Amino acid sequence: MSVGTGEEGLSTKIIEVHDFKQLEELGRKNIEGKIVFFNRLMDPTMINTFGAYGKAANQRTRGAARAGVFGSVGVVVRSLTTSQDDFPHTGVLMYNDTVPKIPAVAISTNGANLLSEWLKIDTELDFIFRTTCYELPEVTSYNVIGEIRGSKFPDEIITVGGHLDAWETGEGAHDDGAGCMQSIEVLRLFQKLGIKPKRTIRAVMFMDEEVAQRGGKEYARQGALKKENHYFALEADRGALMPKGFGVSALDDRLEEILALKKYFEPYGITYFKKGGGGVDIGPLKQFGTPLSSFVPDMQRYFDFHHSGNDTFEHVNFREFQMGSAAIASFIYLIDKYDL
Amino acid sequence: MSVGTGEEGLSTKIIEVHDFKQLEELGRKNIEGKIVFFNRLMDPTMINTFGAYGKAANQRTRGAARAGVFGSVGVVVRSLTTSQDDFPHTGVLMYNDTVPKIPAVAISTNGANLLSEWLKIDTELDFIFRTTCYELPEVTSYNVIGEIRGSKFPDEIITVGGHLDAWETGEGAHDDGAGCMQSIEVLRLFQKLGIKPKRTIRAVMFMDEEVAQRGGKEYARQGALKKENHYFALEADRGALMPKGFGVSALDDRLEEILALKKYFEPYGITYFKKGGGGVDIGPLKQFGTPLSSFVPDMQRYFDFHHSGNDTFEHVNFREFQMGSAAIASFIYLIDKYDL
Repeated sequence: MSVGTGEEGLSTKIIEVHDFKQLEELGRKNIEGKIVFFNRLMDPTMINTFGAYGKAANQRTRGAARAGVFGSVGVVVRSLTTSQDDFPHTGVLMYNDTVPKIPAVAISTNGANLLSEWLKIDTELDFIFRTTCYELPEVTSYNVIGEIRGSKFPDEIITVGGHLDAWETGEGAHDDGAGCMQSIEVLRLFQKLGIKPKRTIRAVMFMDEEVAQRGGKEYARQGALKKENHYFALEADRGALMPKGFGVSALDDRLEEILALKKYFEPYGITYFKKGGGGVDIGPLKQFGTPLSSFVPDMQRYFDFHHSGNDTFEHVNFREFQMGSAAIASFIYLIDKYDL
Repeated sequence: MSVGTGEEGLSTKIIEVHDFKQLEELGRKNIEGKIVFFNRLMDPTMINTFGAYGKAANQRTRGAARAGVFGSVGVVVRSLTTSQDDFPHTGVLMYNDTVPKIPAVAISTNGANLLSEWLKIDTELDFIFRTTCYELPEVTSYNVIGEIRGSKFPDEIITVGGHLDAWETGEGAHDDGAGCMQSIEVLRLFQKLGIKPKRTIRAVMFMDEEVAQRGGKEYARQGALKKENHYFALEADRGALMPKGFGVSALDDRLEEILALKKYFEPYGITYFKKGGGGVDIGPLKQFGTPLSSFVPDMQRYFDFHHSGNDTFEHVNFREFQMGSAAIASFIYLIDKYDL
């Protein structure tokens, strides 16, 4: 994620900011040689936690590149979570080639609050900054795919996928071990129940979702090379939390028919069937006109886990996981059965 | 919960049963002198987990009394939870005076599965049964009440309550520390937001919900003695999980108006507004014709915690707790504001 700064680390002044505009107001004279501490909260009043994440994320993705312009020597970024915890929540960070690549680290929300309090007492605080992170050389890795061949239209492929890679701070249990397992569960449940789908159902564990989505891109590239017929695709990448429903992107008539599946799910409290679905791994299938959908679980607890050491197996609730698997398997079953 | 059996415990044969009918089929000849192991599952396929609990609960509440009829010397009861864990989940148990009071203990779901497996291998298994539980003498305890006096109709009382007592295996965080705190939160949020309710809002922490509901009964008895006007009551006793809505019991016109509040909550995904509400603590207020309501959070994880050592503070998710408090405070605010 970031550039190391040696064994002794760096001891220098630190300055708290909340957005990029503030960097410009402060200017090089106040920032040069200092560490910039981005402490913008992920807005807890937003019911759409992914929206709140989106509004706070640029301090992590672009903070180092932006602070570097003003001569900052490193950035410390408040973790993107509404929970108060001691876990640094990490994630992708982008540099650009015109600015020095200064190191960046995440600080937990508890740590950020404490640091902010200290800075109120003493603005001349020395901050010791040491990171041992480095980037490993790239290696070849693979998507992992399993399928049940269709009984009637084997060439029509329904993809159900999650991603295999994860931020190394935790186990990637919710992001996205759960999505991988729930995709495999579709195949297992079909087999266990003796369901023989008309179409080929593929569980795909995509590689490299977190950095450059090369697994998803390659999957679609191979699909084009092999002239595959991608009938439908679903991505499960929002954690194994209580199923709420599905988001779907498809053309109007087909969209309407798919969203009408809601009636089968309502008795289980699964009522979110709305336009707008997909996922970064299945996104490249759009070139084939394939309808894309997202499994949508409850999002209130997701950022408690996301990209942190808290994203571990024991934080996956088995009942929620099972209910999600059942919802996805039922959805795919109905898509195939009713030729939607 | 049960009767002790001495330092050495009791070593005897154990027989697995799933319902009371089986006890009758087996009869005294197969049960006398043995321990009865009630191993009926809490049905994981039921979406209504309280319904699943209800269908499995009599083995705990009545199992000892029923097994005692056939000369059993003790009962071991499978924990009432759909989770697979190592926590014995406890709860109320009733004897009757015509049958010997034999001891009863809970066994965790993992323990029950293991015991059942062992009994398949060896039906003559010796089971060593020792319990150090005993009943303490009764002491006087109290409901705890705080209120904001109404600005316009101070004599009209809106009660918002949870219960103070809990099974001692855990901390009673979800059952019902959370309900107590969420009731207090209604008062705190009103104060913080400068809301001056027209009616008196009372946060009531009821005593003795778990055994004989004497706190709830006394609250209503005092209400009758003091000729109080109980305008509305809500009970929060289903854990601090994601708010789903409210159940309401009221006369037809008033019920309809209260359920129509749904529109204010829908943007937050809070959509359960249905007839049928109350709670054992506020139940006795029914004598006054008071509309009774229940806070209804998601119920899929509740029995992971309920009456077990797993019901601890760290298993209360702060965001879910806050969303529940906000939902309850908003509901009470609207009831008062629109004179519902």
